[in-house]
Amino acid sequence: MSIKPTSNLELVLTRIIDAPPEKVFRAWTEPELLKQWFAPKPWTTSVAEVDLRPGGSNLIVMRSPEGEEFPNPGVYLEVVKNKKLVFTDAYTSAWVPAEKPFFTAVITFNDEGGKTKYTARAIHWTVADRQKHEEMGFHEGWGICADQLAELVKLM
Amino acid sequence: MSIKPTSNLELVLTRIIDAPPEKVFRAWTEPELLKQWFAPKPWTTSVAEVDLRPGGSNLIVMRSPEGEEFPNPGVYLEVVKNKKLVFTDAYTSAWVPAEKPFFTAVITFNDEGGKTKYTARAIHWTVADRQKHEEMGFHEGWGICADQLAELVKLM
Repeated sequence: MSIKPTSNLELVLTRIIDAPPEKVFRAWTEPELLKQWFAPKPWTTSVAEVDLRPGGSNLIVMRSPEGEEFPNPGVYLEVVKNKKLVFTDAYTSAWVPAEKPFFTAVITFNDEGGKTKYTARAIHWTVADRQKHEEMGFHEGWGICADQLAELVKLM
Repeated sequence: MSIKPTSNLELVLTRIIDAPPEKVFRAWTEPELLKQWFAPKPWTTSVAEVDLRPGGSNLIVMRSPEGEEFPNPGVYLEVVKNKKLVFTDAYTSAWVPAEKPFFTAVITFNDEGGKTKYTARAIHWTVADRQKHEEMGFHEGWGICADQLAELVKLM
Protein backbone atom coordinates (compact mmCIF):
# COMPACT_ATOMS: atom_id res chain seq x y z
CA MET A 1 0.00 0.00 0.00
CA SER A 2 1.06 3.55 -0.56
CA ILE A 3 0.18 7.07 0.54
CA LYS A 4 0.74 10.01 -1.71
CA PRO A 5 3.20 12.57 -0.40
CA THR A 6 1.43 15.83 0.39
CA SER A 7 4.20 17.88 -1.20
CA ASN A 8 7.28 17.52 -3.36
CA LEU A 9 9.36 17.95 -0.19
CA GLU A 10 8.12 14.70 1.25
CA LEU A 11 8.88 10.98 1.02
CA VAL A 12 6.38 8.58 2.54
CA LEU A 13 6.40 4.92 3.45
CA THR A 14 3.43 3.01 4.86
CA ARG A 15 2.76 -0.49 6.10
CA ILE A 16 0.00 -2.36 7.83
CA ILE A 17 1.83 -4.07 10.69
CA ASP A 18 0.28 -7.08 12.39
CA ALA A 19 0.63 -5.80 15.96
CA PRO A 20 -1.07 -3.06 17.97
CA PRO A 21 0.33 0.53 17.97
CA GLU A 22 1.59 0.09 21.56
CA LYS A 23 4.13 -2.50 20.42
CA VAL A 24 5.25 -0.64 17.32
CA PHE A 25 5.68 2.52 19.38
CA ARG A 26 7.77 0.59 21.92
CA ALA A 27 9.98 -0.75 19.13
CA TRP A 28 10.60 2.85 18.07
CA THR A 29 11.34 4.21 21.53
CA GLU A 30 13.03 1.52 23.65
CA PRO A 31 16.74 1.43 22.82
CA GLU A 32 17.12 -2.35 23.13
CA LEU A 33 14.25 -2.90 20.70
CA LEU A 34 15.29 -0.07 18.36
CA LYS A 35 18.71 -1.65 17.97
CA GLN A 36 17.15 -4.86 16.66
CA TRP A 37 15.49 -3.39 13.58
CA PHE A 38 16.68 0.17 12.84
CA ALA A 39 19.55 -0.57 10.47
CA PRO A 40 19.06 -2.66 7.31
CA LYS A 41 20.91 -5.95 7.92
CA PRO A 42 23.81 -6.77 7.71
CA TRP A 43 24.26 -3.24 9.07
CA THR A 44 23.71 -2.96 12.81
CA THR A 45 22.73 -0.28 15.29
CA SER A 46 25.53 0.03 17.84
CA VAL A 47 24.10 2.92 19.85
CA ALA A 48 20.53 4.07 20.44
CA GLU A 49 19.97 6.88 22.91
CA VAL A 50 16.40 7.99 23.41
CA ASP A 51 15.44 10.97 25.54
CA LEU A 52 11.76 10.82 24.75
CA ARG A 53 10.36 14.36 25.12
CA PRO A 54 10.21 17.49 23.00
CA GLY A 55 13.75 18.82 23.04
CA GLY A 56 15.18 15.45 24.07
CA SER A 57 18.11 14.05 22.12
CA ASN A 58 17.98 10.97 19.99
CA LEU A 59 21.25 9.52 18.84
CA ILE A 60 21.48 6.48 16.66
CA VAL A 61 24.79 5.09 15.51
CA MET A 62 24.70 2.70 12.57
CA ARG A 63 27.58 0.36 11.90
CA SER A 64 28.53 -1.02 8.51
CA PRO A 65 29.49 -4.69 8.06
CA GLU A 66 33.11 -3.42 7.86
CA GLY A 67 32.76 -1.83 11.30
CA GLU A 68 32.57 1.79 10.23
CA GLU A 69 30.24 3.85 12.44
CA PHE A 70 27.79 6.53 11.28
CA PRO A 71 26.28 8.65 14.06
CA ASN A 72 22.85 10.19 13.43
CA PRO A 73 22.15 12.78 16.10
CA GLY A 74 18.77 14.47 16.29
CA VAL A 75 16.16 15.98 18.57
CA TYR A 76 12.58 14.92 19.30
CA LEU A 77 10.06 17.65 18.54
CA GLU A 78 6.79 15.92 19.40
CA VAL A 79 5.98 12.77 21.31
CA VAL A 80 2.42 11.40 21.55
CA LYS A 81 2.60 8.01 23.22
CA ASN A 82 1.52 5.12 20.96
CA LYS A 83 0.40 7.57 18.28
CA LYS A 84 3.05 9.89 16.92
CA LEU A 85 6.75 10.65 16.98
CA VAL A 86 8.46 13.63 15.38
CA PHE A 87 12.19 14.27 15.26
CA THR A 88 14.65 16.21 13.15
CA ASP A 89 18.34 16.25 12.29
CA ALA A 90 18.25 20.07 12.14
CA TYR A 91 19.58 20.09 15.73
CA THR A 92 22.22 17.78 17.21
CA SER A 93 20.84 18.50 20.69
CA ALA A 94 18.50 21.15 22.11
CA TRP A 95 19.05 23.69 20.43
CA VAL A 96 22.39 23.27 18.78
CA PRO A 97 22.09 23.70 15.01
CA ALA A 98 23.30 20.81 12.87
CA GLU A 99 25.70 21.54 10.06
CA LYS A 100 22.83 21.09 7.66
CA PRO A 101 19.12 20.69 8.41
CA PHE A 102 18.21 17.79 6.12
CA PHE A 103 14.84 16.42 7.18
CA THR A 104 12.11 16.00 9.76
CA ALA A 105 10.64 12.56 10.40
CA VAL A 106 6.95 12.30 11.27
CA ILE A 107 6.04 8.75 12.28
CA THR A 108 2.41 7.88 12.98
CA PHE A 109 0.94 4.72 14.47
CA ASN A 110 -2.79 4.35 13.78
CA ASP A 111 -4.86 1.57 15.29
CA GLU A 112 -6.76 -0.42 12.67
CA GLY A 113 -8.63 -3.12 14.56
CA GLY A 114 -5.62 -4.30 16.55
CA LYS A 115 -3.17 -3.85 13.68
CA THR A 116 -1.11 -0.74 13.08
CA LYS A 117 -1.22 1.50 10.09
CA TYR A 118 2.36 2.64 10.17
CA THR A 119 3.30 5.81 8.26
CA ALA A 120 6.82 7.21 8.10
CA ARG A 121 7.19 10.61 6.48
CA ALA A 122 10.51 12.32 5.73
CA ILE A 123 9.94 16.01 5.12
CA HIS A 124 12.82 17.97 3.62
CA TRP A 125 13.55 21.68 3.44
CA THR A 126 14.37 21.60 -0.27
CA VAL A 127 13.26 19.61 -3.30
CA ALA A 128 16.94 18.90 -4.02
CA ASP A 129 17.31 17.23 -0.61
CA ARG A 130 14.13 15.19 -1.11
CA GLN A 131 15.52 13.99 -4.47
CA LYS A 132 18.88 13.21 -2.92
CA HIS A 133 17.22 11.19 -0.15
CA GLU A 134 15.19 9.31 -2.76
CA GLU A 135 18.33 8.55 -4.79
CA MET A 136 20.15 7.43 -1.61
CA GLY A 137 17.54 4.67 -1.52
CA PHE A 138 14.93 5.96 0.92
CA HIS A 139 12.17 3.62 -0.21
CA GLU A 140 14.35 0.51 -0.28
CA GLY A 141 16.19 1.32 2.97
CA TRP A 142 13.21 2.41 5.03
CA GLY A 143 11.22 -0.45 3.47
CA ILE A 144 13.73 -3.10 4.61
CA CYS A 145 13.74 -1.58 8.08
CA ALA A 146 9.94 -1.49 8.22
CA ASP A 147 9.96 -5.21 7.37
CA GLN A 148 12.48 -5.84 10.16
CA LEU A 149 10.28 -3.78 12.52
CA ALA A 150 7.20 -5.79 11.52
CA GLU A 151 9.06 -9.06 12.15
CA LEU A 152 10.25 -7.90 15.57
CA VAL A 153 6.87 -6.76 16.90
CA LYS A 154 5.28 -10.07 15.90
CA LEU A 155 7.61 -11.75 18.42
CA MET A 156 6.94 -9.26 21.24
CA MET B 1 25.87 44.42 30.16
CA SER B 2 26.74 41.78 27.63
CA ILE B 3 27.09 38.04 27.34
CA LYS B 4 29.53 36.47 24.96
CA PRO B 5 27.99 34.32 22.27
CA THR B 6 28.93 30.66 22.76
CA SER B 7 29.61 30.19 19.05
CA ASN B 8 30.02 32.14 15.84
CA LEU B 9 26.50 31.04 14.89
CA GLU B 10 24.96 33.04 17.71
CA LEU B 11 23.88 36.61 18.43
CA VAL B 12 23.04 37.51 22.00
CA LEU B 13 21.31 40.39 23.71
CA THR B 14 20.91 40.76 27.46
CA ARG B 15 19.20 43.21 29.82
CA ILE B 16 18.44 43.47 33.47
CA ILE B 17 14.75 44.35 33.48
CA ASP B 18 13.19 45.95 36.52
CA ALA B 19 10.29 43.53 36.88
CA PRO B 20 9.97 39.87 37.90
CA PRO B 21 10.26 37.08 35.30
CA GLU B 22 6.52 36.37 35.52
CA LYS B 23 5.74 39.77 33.99
CA VAL B 24 8.41 39.62 31.31
CA PHE B 25 7.24 36.13 30.34
CA ARG B 26 3.64 37.39 30.11
CA ALA B 27 4.77 40.23 27.83
CA TRP B 28 6.33 37.62 25.56
CA THR B 29 3.36 35.26 25.49
CA GLU B 30 0.12 37.25 25.76
CA PRO B 31 -0.80 38.60 22.31
CA GLU B 32 -2.21 41.92 23.55
CA LEU B 33 1.00 42.61 25.48
CA LEU B 34 3.29 41.30 22.74
CA LYS B 35 1.73 43.72 20.26
CA GLN B 36 2.74 46.66 22.46
CA TRP B 37 6.48 46.13 22.31
CA PHE B 38 7.52 43.58 19.69
CA ALA B 39 8.14 45.90 16.73
CA PRO B 40 10.55 48.85 16.97
CA LYS B 41 8.41 52.00 16.85
CA PRO B 42 7.12 53.55 14.60
CA TRP B 43 6.63 50.02 13.25
CA THR B 44 3.71 48.20 14.82
CA THR B 45 2.67 44.60 15.40
CA SER B 46 -0.67 44.05 13.67
CA VAL B 47 -1.06 40.34 14.43
CA ALA B 48 0.30 38.19 17.25
CA GLU B 49 -0.90 34.59 17.42
CA VAL B 50 0.52 32.49 20.22
CA ASP B 51 -0.15 28.77 20.58
CA LEU B 52 2.08 28.26 23.58
CA ARG B 53 3.27 24.63 23.53
CA PRO B 54 5.98 22.66 21.76
CA GLY B 55 4.75 22.38 18.19
CA GLY B 56 2.38 25.33 18.59
CA SER B 57 2.44 28.09 15.99
CA ASN B 58 3.55 31.60 16.61
CA LEU B 59 2.73 34.17 13.99
CA ILE B 60 3.76 37.76 14.28
CA VAL B 61 2.95 40.30 11.59
CA MET B 62 4.92 43.53 11.68
CA ARG B 63 3.65 46.60 9.89
CA SER B 64 5.81 49.38 8.52
CA PRO B 65 4.87 53.06 8.98
CA GLU B 66 3.78 52.94 5.30
CA GLY B 67 1.35 50.11 6.08
CA GLU B 68 3.29 47.26 4.48
CA GLU B 69 2.93 43.98 6.40
CA PHE B 70 5.66 41.43 7.11
CA PRO B 71 4.47 38.08 8.45
CA ASN B 72 6.88 36.10 10.62
CA PRO B 73 5.57 32.58 11.06
CA GLY B 74 7.29 30.15 13.40
CA VAL B 75 6.83 27.25 15.79
CA TYR B 76 7.48 26.97 19.52
CA LEU B 77 9.94 24.20 20.39
CA GLU B 78 10.17 24.56 24.16
CA VAL B 79 8.06 26.40 26.71
CA VAL B 80 9.06 26.59 30.38
CA LYS B 81 6.66 28.98 32.09
CA ASN B 82 8.33 32.13 33.43
CA LYS B 83 11.77 30.73 32.59
CA LYS B 84 12.40 29.89 28.95
CA LEU B 85 10.92 30.15 25.49
CA VAL B 86 12.34 28.59 22.33
CA PHE B 87 10.96 29.02 18.82
CA THR B 88 12.23 28.75 15.28
CA ASP B 89 11.38 30.00 11.80
CA ALA B 90 12.52 26.66 10.34
CA TYR B 91 8.86 25.58 10.32
CA THR B 92 5.85 27.72 9.41
CA SER B 93 3.62 25.38 11.45
CA ALA B 94 4.10 21.88 12.90
CA TRP B 95 5.93 20.41 10.91
CA VAL B 96 5.82 22.29 7.63
CA PRO B 97 9.31 23.30 6.54
CA ALA B 98 9.88 27.00 5.93
CA GLU B 99 11.43 28.08 2.66
CA LYS B 100 14.65 28.66 4.56
CA PRO B 101 15.52 27.77 8.16
CA PHE B 102 17.16 31.00 9.34
CA PHE B 103 17.36 30.94 13.12
CA THR B 104 16.21 29.60 16.47
CA ALA B 105 15.41 32.03 19.29
CA VAL B 106 16.20 30.97 22.85
CA ILE B 107 14.81 33.48 25.35
CA THR B 108 15.56 33.04 29.04
CA PHE B 109 14.10 34.87 32.02
CA ASN B 110 16.21 34.52 35.17
CA ASP B 111 15.11 35.84 38.52
CA GLU B 112 17.68 38.12 40.09
CA GLY B 113 16.17 39.29 43.37
CA GLY B 114 12.86 40.35 41.88
CA LYS B 115 14.39 41.69 38.67
CA THR B 116 14.80 39.72 35.48
CA LYS B 117 18.01 38.88 33.76
CA TYR B 118 16.68 38.75 30.24
CA THR B 119 18.74 36.95 27.59
CA ALA B 120 17.71 36.67 23.94
CA ARG B 121 19.82 34.39 21.77
CA ALA B 122 19.46 34.03 18.01
CA ILE B 123 21.17 30.85 16.86
CA HIS B 124 21.69 30.43 13.12
CA TRP B 125 22.48 27.40 10.98
CA THR B 126 25.31 29.14 9.13
CA VAL B 127 27.91 31.79 9.89
CA ALA B 128 26.75 33.65 6.76
CA ASP B 129 23.23 33.90 8.18
CA ARG B 130 24.53 35.08 11.55
CA GLN B 131 26.51 37.80 9.76
CA LYS B 132 23.51 38.76 7.66
CA HIS B 133 21.32 39.02 10.78
CA GLU B 134 23.97 41.18 12.43
CA GLU B 135 24.16 43.44 9.38
CA MET B 136 20.35 43.66 9.25
CA GLY B 137 20.71 45.39 12.62
CA PHE B 138 20.05 42.63 15.13
CA HIS B 139 21.64 44.45 18.07
CA GLU B 140 19.97 47.78 17.39
CA GLY B 141 16.58 46.27 16.50
CA TRP B 142 16.35 43.74 19.33
CA GLY B 143 17.83 46.40 21.66
CA ILE B 144 15.09 48.93 20.88
CA CYS B 145 12.46 46.23 21.37
CA ALA B 146 14.02 45.13 24.67
CA ASP B 147 13.80 48.75 25.85
CA GLN B 148 10.14 48.87 24.81
CA LEU B 149 9.59 45.57 26.65
CA ALA B 150 11.26 46.94 29.79
CA GLU B 151 9.07 50.07 29.66
CA LEU B 152 5.90 48.02 29.27
CA VAL B 153 6.49 45.62 32.16
CA LYS B 154 7.23 48.51 34.52
CA LEU B 155 3.60 49.63 33.96
CA MET B 156 2.11 46.17 34.46
